[in-house]
Amino acid sequence: MGKSWLDSLIVSRLNGQTDQPINVYLCAMRKLSMDELNRKSVDEFKDAEKMPVVVVLDNIRSMHNVGSVFRTADAFLLRGIYLCGYTPQPPHRDIHKTALGATETVNWNYTATTVEAVQQLKEDGYKVFAIEQVQDSISLNQFNMNQHEPVAVVFGNEVTGVDEQVIKLCDGCIEIPQLGMKHSLNISVAAGIVLWELVRTQLSNTEIPSREG
Amino acid sequence: MGKSWLDSLIVSRLNGQTDQPINVYLCAMRKLSMDELNRKSVDEFKDAEKMPVVVVLDNIRSMHNVGSVFRTADAFLLRGIYLCGYTPQPPHRDIHKTALGATETVNWNYTATTVEAVQQLKEDGYKVFAIEQVQDSISLNQFNMNQHEPVAVVFGNEVTGVDEQVIKLCDGCIEIPQLGMKHSLNISVAAGIVLWELVRTQLSNTEIPSREG
Repeated sequence: MGKSWLDSLIVSRLNGQTDQPINVYLCAMRKLSMDELNRKSVDEFKDAEKMPVVVVLDNIRSMHNVGSVFRTADAFLLRGIYLCGYTPQPPHRDIHKTALGATETVNWNYTATTVEAVQQLKEDGYKVFAIEQVQDSISLNQFNMNQHEPVAVVFGNEVTGVDEQVIKLCDGCIEIPQLGMKHSLNISVAAGIVLWELVRTQLSNTEIPSREG
Repeated sequence: MGKSWLDSLIVSRLNGQTDQPINVYLCAMRKLSMDELNRKSVDEFKDAEKMPVVVVLDNIRSMHNVGSVFRTADAFLLRGIYLCGYTPQPPHRDIHKTALGATETVNWNYTATTVEAVQQLKEDGYKVFAIEQVQDSISLNQFNMNQHEPVAVVFGNEVTGVDEQVIKLCDGCIEIPQLGMKHSLNISVAAGIVLWELVRTQLSNTEIPSREG
Protein backbone atom coordinates (compact mmCIF):
# COMPACT_ATOMS: atom_id res chain seq x y z
CA MET A 1 0.00 0.00 0.00
CA GLY A 2 1.53 3.31 -1.15
CA LYS A 3 2.28 5.12 2.12
CA SER A 4 4.18 8.01 0.56
CA TRP A 5 1.28 8.55 -1.79
CA LEU A 6 -1.16 8.57 1.13
CA ASP A 7 1.15 10.93 3.00
CA SER A 8 1.20 13.36 0.10
CA LEU A 9 -2.59 13.23 -0.11
CA ILE A 10 -2.85 14.04 3.57
CA VAL A 11 -0.41 16.94 3.10
CA SER A 12 -2.44 18.25 0.13
CA ARG A 13 -5.58 17.98 2.20
CA LEU A 14 -4.03 19.84 5.10
CA ASN A 15 -2.76 22.52 2.73
CA GLY A 16 -6.23 22.91 1.25
CA GLN A 17 -5.08 21.81 -2.22
CA THR A 18 -7.71 19.10 -2.37
CA ASP A 19 -10.99 18.50 -0.65
CA GLN A 20 -11.33 14.85 -1.48
CA PRO A 21 -12.18 12.84 1.63
CA ILE A 22 -9.20 10.89 2.89
CA ASN A 23 -11.15 7.93 4.20
CA VAL A 24 -12.02 6.65 0.70
CA TYR A 25 -8.30 6.31 0.01
CA LEU A 26 -7.64 3.96 2.89
CA CYS A 27 -7.95 0.93 0.67
CA ALA A 28 -5.16 -0.29 -1.54
CA MET A 29 -7.74 -1.58 -3.99
CA ARG A 30 -9.77 1.62 -4.37
CA LYS A 31 -10.68 2.48 -7.95
CA LEU A 32 -8.73 5.24 -9.63
CA SER A 33 -10.26 8.53 -10.70
CA MET A 34 -10.03 9.75 -14.30
CA ASP A 35 -7.24 12.15 -13.33
CA GLU A 36 -5.19 9.41 -11.77
CA LEU A 37 -5.56 7.22 -14.85
CA ASN A 38 -3.38 9.82 -16.51
CA ARG A 39 -4.92 9.52 -19.96
CA LYS A 40 -3.50 11.48 -22.86
CA SER A 41 -5.19 14.50 -24.41
CA VAL A 42 -5.71 14.49 -28.20
CA ASP A 43 -2.56 16.57 -28.69
CA GLU A 44 -0.48 14.44 -26.34
CA PHE A 45 -1.70 11.35 -28.19
CA LYS A 46 -0.73 12.83 -31.58
CA ASP A 47 2.74 13.75 -30.30
CA ALA A 48 3.45 10.49 -28.45
CA GLU A 49 5.74 7.85 -29.88
CA LYS A 50 3.47 5.09 -31.13
CA MET A 51 3.62 1.32 -31.00
CA PRO A 52 5.00 0.12 -34.37
CA VAL A 53 1.68 -1.43 -35.40
CA VAL A 54 -0.85 -0.51 -38.09
CA VAL A 55 -4.30 -2.11 -38.52
CA VAL A 56 -5.81 -2.71 -41.97
CA LEU A 57 -9.56 -3.27 -42.22
CA ASP A 58 -10.42 -5.14 -45.41
CA ASN A 59 -14.04 -4.42 -46.35
CA ILE A 60 -15.47 -4.59 -42.84
CA ARG A 61 -19.24 -3.96 -42.83
CA SER A 62 -20.02 -3.25 -39.20
CA MET A 63 -19.76 0.26 -37.75
CA HIS A 64 -19.53 -1.39 -34.33
CA ASN A 65 -16.44 -3.34 -35.39
CA VAL A 66 -14.80 -0.25 -36.90
CA GLY A 67 -15.54 1.81 -33.79
CA SER A 68 -14.22 -0.91 -31.53
CA VAL A 69 -10.96 -1.19 -33.48
CA PHE A 70 -10.50 2.60 -33.15
CA ARG A 71 -11.00 2.32 -29.39
CA THR A 72 -8.49 -0.52 -29.12
CA ALA A 73 -6.00 1.33 -31.35
CA ASP A 74 -6.29 4.32 -29.02
CA ALA A 75 -5.83 2.18 -25.91
CA PHE A 76 -2.67 0.62 -27.31
CA LEU A 77 -1.32 3.81 -28.92
CA LEU A 78 -1.01 2.33 -32.41
CA ARG A 79 0.41 4.16 -35.42
CA GLY A 80 -2.83 4.07 -37.36
CA ILE A 81 -5.63 2.32 -39.21
CA TYR A 82 -6.22 1.81 -42.93
CA LEU A 83 -9.92 1.67 -43.78
CA CYS A 84 -10.28 -0.10 -47.13
CA GLY A 85 -12.99 -0.66 -49.73
CA TYR A 86 -16.48 -0.34 -48.28
CA THR A 87 -15.28 -0.20 -44.67
CA PRO A 88 -17.23 2.74 -43.17
CA GLN A 89 -15.27 5.90 -42.35
CA PRO A 90 -15.66 8.44 -39.54
CA PRO A 91 -17.35 10.71 -38.82
CA HIS A 92 -20.42 8.53 -38.39
CA ARG A 93 -22.76 8.34 -35.42
CA ASP A 94 -22.67 4.54 -35.28
CA ILE A 95 -18.85 4.41 -35.35
CA HIS A 96 -18.73 7.08 -32.66
CA LYS A 97 -21.09 5.07 -30.42
CA THR A 98 -18.36 2.44 -30.00
CA ALA A 99 -15.21 4.50 -30.66
CA LEU A 100 -16.20 7.12 -28.05
CA GLY A 101 -13.75 9.76 -29.27
CA ALA A 102 -10.94 7.47 -30.41
CA THR A 103 -11.53 8.60 -34.02
CA GLU A 104 -10.11 11.97 -32.94
CA THR A 105 -6.85 10.53 -31.67
CA VAL A 106 -6.00 7.59 -33.92
CA ASN A 107 -4.51 8.35 -37.35
CA TRP A 108 -6.40 6.80 -40.21
CA ASN A 109 -6.27 6.59 -44.00
CA TYR A 110 -8.73 5.43 -46.59
CA THR A 111 -7.81 3.40 -49.68
CA ALA A 112 -10.28 2.20 -52.30
CA THR A 113 -8.77 -1.29 -52.23
CA THR A 114 -7.02 -3.28 -49.51
CA VAL A 115 -4.32 -4.25 -52.02
CA GLU A 116 -3.32 -0.57 -52.27
CA ALA A 117 -3.00 -0.27 -48.50
CA VAL A 118 -0.87 -3.41 -48.24
CA GLN A 119 1.38 -2.29 -51.11
CA GLN A 120 1.83 1.12 -49.48
CA LEU A 121 2.66 -0.45 -46.11
CA LYS A 122 5.20 -2.82 -47.68
CA GLU A 123 6.85 0.13 -49.44
CA ASP A 124 7.00 1.84 -46.05
CA GLY A 125 8.88 -1.14 -44.60
CA TYR A 126 6.07 -2.91 -42.76
CA LYS A 127 5.74 -6.67 -42.56
CA VAL A 128 2.09 -7.35 -43.32
CA PHE A 129 0.19 -10.28 -41.82
CA ALA A 130 -3.40 -11.31 -42.47
CA ILE A 131 -5.37 -12.62 -39.50
CA GLU A 132 -6.69 -15.81 -41.05
CA GLN A 133 -7.03 -19.53 -40.54
CA VAL A 134 -4.94 -20.87 -43.39
CA GLN A 135 -2.80 -23.93 -44.02
CA ASP A 136 0.52 -22.37 -43.03
CA SER A 137 -0.57 -19.76 -40.52
CA ILE A 138 1.57 -18.81 -37.53
CA SER A 139 -0.15 -19.42 -34.20
CA LEU A 140 -0.51 -16.07 -32.39
CA ASN A 141 1.31 -17.41 -29.32
CA GLN A 142 4.33 -18.20 -31.50
CA PHE A 143 4.44 -14.91 -33.39
CA ASN A 144 7.60 -12.97 -32.66
CA MET A 145 6.77 -9.27 -32.88
CA ASN A 146 10.34 -8.18 -32.21
CA GLN A 147 11.55 -10.15 -35.21
CA HIS A 148 9.15 -8.43 -37.60
CA GLU A 149 8.39 -4.88 -36.45
CA PRO A 150 7.03 -2.59 -37.78
CA VAL A 151 4.01 -4.81 -38.38
CA ALA A 152 0.65 -4.30 -40.09
CA VAL A 153 -2.21 -6.72 -39.47
CA VAL A 154 -5.15 -7.20 -41.82
CA PHE A 155 -8.62 -8.10 -40.50
CA GLY A 156 -11.07 -9.30 -43.14
CA ASN A 157 -14.77 -9.01 -43.83
CA GLU A 158 -17.09 -10.50 -41.19
CA VAL A 159 -18.32 -13.24 -43.54
CA THR A 160 -15.70 -13.83 -46.23
CA GLY A 161 -12.53 -13.04 -44.24
CA VAL A 162 -9.43 -11.48 -45.79
CA ASP A 163 -9.55 -11.42 -49.60
CA GLU A 164 -7.41 -14.09 -51.30
CA GLN A 165 -5.59 -11.46 -53.40
CA VAL A 166 -4.66 -9.63 -50.21
CA ILE A 167 -3.49 -12.82 -48.49
CA LYS A 168 -1.16 -13.51 -51.43
CA LEU A 169 0.48 -10.10 -50.97
CA CYS A 170 1.02 -10.61 -47.25
CA ASP A 171 4.20 -11.80 -45.57
CA GLY A 172 2.18 -14.46 -43.78
CA CYS A 173 -0.96 -15.22 -41.83
CA ILE A 174 -1.45 -15.19 -38.07
CA GLU A 175 -4.12 -17.35 -36.46
CA ILE A 176 -5.63 -17.07 -32.99
CA PRO A 177 -5.57 -20.64 -31.67
CA GLN A 178 -9.13 -21.67 -30.92
CA LEU A 179 -9.95 -24.78 -28.97
CA GLY A 180 -13.75 -24.88 -28.82
CA MET A 181 -16.77 -25.62 -30.97
CA LYS A 182 -17.04 -22.30 -32.78
CA HIS A 183 -14.67 -21.43 -35.58
CA SER A 184 -14.33 -17.70 -35.22
CA LEU A 185 -14.28 -14.79 -32.82
CA ASN A 186 -15.99 -11.49 -33.49
CA ILE A 187 -13.63 -9.09 -35.29
CA SER A 188 -13.60 -6.54 -32.48
CA VAL A 189 -12.60 -9.27 -30.00
CA ALA A 190 -10.06 -10.83 -32.38
CA ALA A 191 -8.54 -7.38 -32.98
CA GLY A 192 -8.29 -6.78 -29.23
CA ILE A 193 -6.50 -10.10 -28.73
CA VAL A 194 -4.07 -9.74 -31.66
CA LEU A 195 -3.24 -6.10 -30.94
CA TRP A 196 -2.67 -6.82 -27.24
CA GLU A 197 -0.32 -9.66 -28.16
CA LEU A 198 1.71 -7.37 -30.47
CA VAL A 199 1.83 -4.53 -27.95
CA ARG A 200 2.43 -6.71 -24.87
CA THR A 201 5.95 -7.56 -25.96
CA GLN A 202 6.76 -3.84 -26.38
CA LEU A 203 5.69 -2.81 -22.90
CA SER A 204 8.06 -2.01 -20.11
CA ASN A 205 8.07 -4.74 -17.51
CA THR A 206 8.30 -2.45 -14.56
CA GLU A 207 5.18 -0.35 -14.37
CA ILE A 208 1.65 0.07 -15.61
CA PRO A 209 2.39 2.30 -18.61
CA SER A 210 -0.80 4.28 -18.14
CA ARG A 211 0.59 5.59 -14.86
CA GLU A 212 4.17 6.15 -15.95
CA GLY A 213 3.80 9.73 -17.18
CA MET B 1 3.63 -26.92 -47.61
CA GLY B 2 1.99 -30.24 -46.66
CA LYS B 3 2.77 -32.54 -49.53
CA SER B 4 1.33 -35.66 -47.93
CA TRP B 5 -1.89 -33.78 -47.40
CA LEU B 6 -2.01 -32.69 -51.02
CA ASP B 7 -1.24 -36.27 -52.07
CA SER B 8 -4.13 -37.56 -50.04
CA LEU B 9 -6.44 -34.99 -51.60
CA ILE B 10 -5.39 -36.09 -55.06
CA VAL B 11 -5.98 -39.72 -54.10
CA SER B 12 -9.44 -38.85 -52.71
CA ARG B 13 -10.21 -37.00 -55.92
CA LEU B 14 -9.08 -39.89 -58.08
CA ASN B 15 -11.15 -42.28 -55.97
CA GLY B 16 -14.20 -40.06 -56.40
CA GLN B 17 -14.44 -39.37 -52.64
CA THR B 18 -14.38 -35.63 -53.23
CA ASP B 19 -15.11 -33.38 -56.15
CA GLN B 20 -13.37 -30.29 -54.84
CA PRO B 21 -11.11 -28.78 -57.51
CA ILE B 22 -7.46 -29.47 -56.79
CA ASN B 23 -6.11 -26.20 -58.19
CA VAL B 24 -7.51 -24.12 -55.31
CA TYR B 25 -5.34 -26.09 -52.93
CA LEU B 26 -2.07 -25.22 -54.62
CA CYS B 27 -1.45 -22.34 -52.27
CA ALA B 28 0.11 -22.72 -48.87
CA MET B 29 -1.99 -19.79 -47.69
CA ARG B 30 -5.37 -21.15 -48.79
CA LYS B 31 -8.10 -20.75 -46.19
CA LEU B 32 -9.13 -23.84 -44.25
CA SER B 33 -12.53 -25.47 -44.54
CA MET B 34 -14.72 -26.03 -41.47
CA ASP B 35 -13.71 -29.72 -41.42
CA GLU B 36 -10.04 -28.89 -41.43
CA LEU B 37 -10.46 -26.44 -38.55
CA ASN B 38 -11.19 -29.54 -36.49
CA ARG B 39 -13.66 -27.88 -34.16
CA LYS B 40 -15.12 -29.83 -31.26
CA SER B 41 -18.72 -31.08 -31.14
CA VAL B 42 -20.80 -30.15 -28.07
CA ASP B 43 -20.05 -33.58 -26.51
CA GLU B 44 -16.35 -33.37 -27.28
CA PHE B 45 -16.27 -29.90 -25.71
CA LYS B 46 -18.02 -31.14 -22.55
CA ASP B 47 -15.57 -34.06 -22.22
CA ALA B 48 -12.39 -32.09 -23.01
CA GLU B 49 -9.99 -31.02 -20.29
CA LYS B 50 -10.53 -27.31 -19.80
CA MET B 51 -8.23 -24.35 -19.25
CA PRO B 52 -8.16 -23.65 -15.48
CA VAL B 53 -10.02 -20.36 -15.88
CA VAL B 54 -13.52 -19.23 -14.83
CA VAL B 55 -15.16 -15.94 -15.78
CA VAL B 56 -17.43 -14.05 -13.37
CA LEU B 57 -19.80 -11.42 -14.79
CA ASP B 58 -20.78 -8.93 -12.10
CA ASN B 59 -24.10 -7.31 -13.05
CA ILE B 60 -23.38 -6.92 -16.76
CA ARG B 61 -26.29 -5.28 -18.60
CA SER B 62 -25.57 -5.98 -22.25
CA MET B 63 -26.73 -9.20 -23.94
CA HIS B 64 -24.07 -8.54 -26.56
CA ASN B 65 -21.32 -8.54 -23.92
CA VAL B 66 -22.65 -11.73 -22.33
CA GLY B 67 -22.91 -13.48 -25.71
CA SER B 68 -19.41 -12.36 -26.67
CA VAL B 69 -17.92 -13.68 -23.40
CA PHE B 70 -19.60 -17.05 -24.07
CA ARG B 71 -18.07 -17.13 -27.55
CA THR B 72 -14.61 -16.30 -26.19
CA ALA B 73 -14.98 -18.86 -23.38
CA ASP B 74 -15.81 -21.46 -26.02
CA ALA B 75 -12.86 -20.48 -28.19
CA PHE B 76 -10.44 -20.80 -25.27
CA LEU B 77 -12.08 -23.89 -23.75
CA LEU B 78 -12.63 -22.32 -20.33
CA ARG B 79 -14.07 -24.15 -17.31
CA GLY B 80 -17.13 -21.94 -17.09
CA ILE B 81 -18.89 -18.65 -16.49
CA TYR B 82 -20.72 -17.32 -13.42
CA LEU B 83 -23.57 -14.98 -14.35
CA CYS B 84 -24.34 -12.83 -11.30
CA GLY B 85 -27.06 -10.44 -10.20
CA TYR B 86 -28.97 -8.94 -13.10
CA THR B 87 -26.57 -10.28 -15.76
CA PRO B 88 -28.88 -11.80 -18.40
CA GLN B 89 -28.96 -15.59 -18.71
CA PRO B 90 -29.40 -17.86 -21.73
CA PRO B 91 -31.50 -18.85 -23.49
CA HIS B 92 -32.17 -15.43 -24.94
CA ARG B 93 -32.30 -14.44 -28.57
CA ASP B 94 -30.02 -11.42 -28.09
CA ILE B 95 -27.36 -13.46 -26.24
CA HIS B 96 -27.55 -16.12 -28.96
CA LYS B 97 -27.01 -13.50 -31.69
CA THR B 98 -23.44 -12.99 -30.41
CA ALA B 99 -22.76 -16.32 -28.69
CA LEU B 100 -23.72 -18.28 -31.83
CA GLY B 101 -24.10 -21.62 -30.07
CA ALA B 102 -21.41 -21.18 -27.41
CA THR B 103 -24.12 -21.20 -24.71
CA GLU B 104 -24.56 -24.90 -25.52
CA THR B 105 -20.92 -25.77 -24.91
CA VAL B 106 -19.71 -23.52 -22.10
CA ASN B 107 -20.72 -24.46 -18.52
CA TRP B 108 -22.43 -21.68 -16.64
CA ASN B 109 -23.96 -21.01 -13.24
CA TYR B 110 -26.16 -18.26 -11.92
CA THR B 111 -25.79 -16.66 -8.48
CA ALA B 112 -28.01 -13.88 -7.15
CA THR B 113 -24.96 -11.92 -5.99
CA THR B 114 -21.39 -11.73 -7.25
CA VAL B 115 -20.14 -12.08 -3.66
CA GLU B 116 -21.66 -15.59 -3.56
CA ALA B 117 -19.90 -16.59 -6.77
CA VAL B 118 -16.54 -15.30 -5.52
CA GLN B 119 -16.93 -17.04 -2.15
CA GLN B 120 -17.83 -20.31 -3.90
CA LEU B 121 -14.83 -20.03 -6.21
CA LYS B 122 -12.46 -19.31 -3.32
CA GLU B 123 -13.81 -22.37 -1.47
CA ASP B 124 -13.13 -24.35 -4.64
CA GLY B 125 -9.49 -23.24 -4.57
CA TYR B 126 -9.57 -20.50 -7.20
CA LYS B 127 -7.56 -17.31 -6.95
CA VAL B 128 -10.01 -14.56 -7.85
CA PHE B 129 -8.96 -11.34 -9.59
CA ALA B 130 -11.14 -8.37 -10.50
CA ILE B 131 -10.37 -6.65 -13.80
CA GLU B 132 -10.16 -3.08 -12.57
CA GLN B 133 -8.03 0.03 -12.60
CA VAL B 134 -7.15 0.36 -8.93
CA GLN B 135 -4.22 1.71 -6.94
CA ASP B 136 -2.39 -1.59 -6.52
CA SER B 137 -3.50 -3.48 -9.62
CA ILE B 138 -1.20 -5.91 -11.40
CA SER B 139 -0.50 -4.97 -15.00
CA LEU B 140 -1.83 -7.74 -17.27
CA ASN B 141 1.60 -8.17 -18.91
CA GLN B 142 3.10 -8.91 -15.50
CA PHE B 143 0.43 -11.32 -14.28
CA ASN B 144 1.83 -14.81 -13.79
CA MET B 145 -0.93 -17.28 -14.55
CA ASN B 146 1.19 -20.31 -13.65
CA GLN B 147 1.75 -18.94 -10.16
CA HIS B 148 -1.95 -18.60 -9.45
CA GLU B 149 -3.97 -21.19 -11.35
CA PRO B 150 -6.80 -22.07 -11.17
CA VAL B 151 -7.89 -18.49 -11.70
CA ALA B 152 -11.25 -16.71 -11.80
CA VAL B 153 -11.55 -13.23 -13.30
CA VAL B 154 -14.38 -10.81 -12.51
CA PHE B 155 -15.63 -8.31 -15.11
CA GLY B 156 -17.84 -5.55 -13.75
CA ASN B 157 -20.83 -3.58 -14.88
CA GLU B 158 -20.38 -1.45 -18.04
CA VAL B 159 -20.74 1.82 -16.13
CA THR B 160 -19.85 1.21 -12.49
CA GLY B 161 -17.21 -1.53 -12.88
CA VAL B 162 -16.69 -4.30 -10.34
CA ASP B 163 -18.55 -3.67 -7.08
CA GLU B 164 -16.33 -2.49 -4.19
CA GLN B 165 -17.55 -5.30 -1.93
CA VAL B 166 -16.49 -7.81 -4.57
CA ILE B 167 -13.09 -6.16 -5.04
CA LYS B 168 -12.46 -6.47 -1.30
CA LEU B 169 -13.06 -10.23 -1.48
CA CYS B 170 -10.69 -10.71 -4.41
CA ASP B 171 -7.06 -11.81 -4.22
CA GLY B 172 -6.13 -8.80 -6.31
CA CYS B 173 -6.95 -6.70 -9.35
CA ILE B 174 -5.58 -7.04 -12.86
CA GLU B 175 -5.43 -4.02 -15.17
CA ILE B 176 -5.03 -3.93 -18.94
CA PRO B 177 -2.34 -1.28 -19.51
CA GLN B 178 -3.86 1.46 -21.65
CA LEU B 179 -1.76 4.13 -23.26
CA GLY B 180 -4.23 6.34 -25.11
CA MET B 181 -6.88 8.95 -24.49
CA LYS B 182 -9.78 6.70 -23.56
CA HIS B 183 -9.95 5.12 -20.15
CA SER B 184 -11.65 1.84 -20.87
CA LEU B 185 -12.16 -0.90 -23.40
CA ASN B 186 -15.51 -2.49 -24.12
CA ILE B 187 -16.08 -5.50 -21.83
CA SER B 188 -16.22 -8.01 -24.67
CA VAL B 189 -12.84 -6.75 -25.95
CA ALA B 190 -11.32 -6.56 -22.46
CA ALA B 191 -12.51 -10.12 -21.78
CA GLY B 192 -10.97 -11.33 -25.04
CA ILE B 193 -7.62 -9.74 -24.13
CA VAL B 194 -7.51 -10.95 -20.52
CA LEU B 195 -8.69 -14.48 -21.32
CA TRP B 196 -6.21 -14.77 -24.19
CA GLU B 197 -3.40 -13.68 -21.87
CA LEU B 198 -4.37 -16.33 -19.27
CA VAL B 199 -4.75 -19.08 -21.86
CA ARG B 200 -1.69 -18.14 -23.93
CA THR B 201 0.70 -19.30 -21.24
CA GLN B 202 -1.06 -22.68 -21.08
CA LEU B 203 -0.79 -23.46 -24.79
CA SER B 204 1.65 -25.89 -26.27
CA ASN B 205 4.40 -24.07 -28.09
CA THR B 206 4.64 -26.49 -30.94
CA GLU B 207 1.41 -26.45 -32.89
CA ILE B 208 -1.82 -24.62 -33.49
CA PRO B 209 -3.94 -26.44 -30.90
CA SER B 210 -7.04 -26.31 -33.09
CA ARG B 211 -5.31 -28.62 -35.53
CA GLU B 212 -3.68 -30.97 -33.03
CA GLY B 213 -6.53 -33.47 -32.73
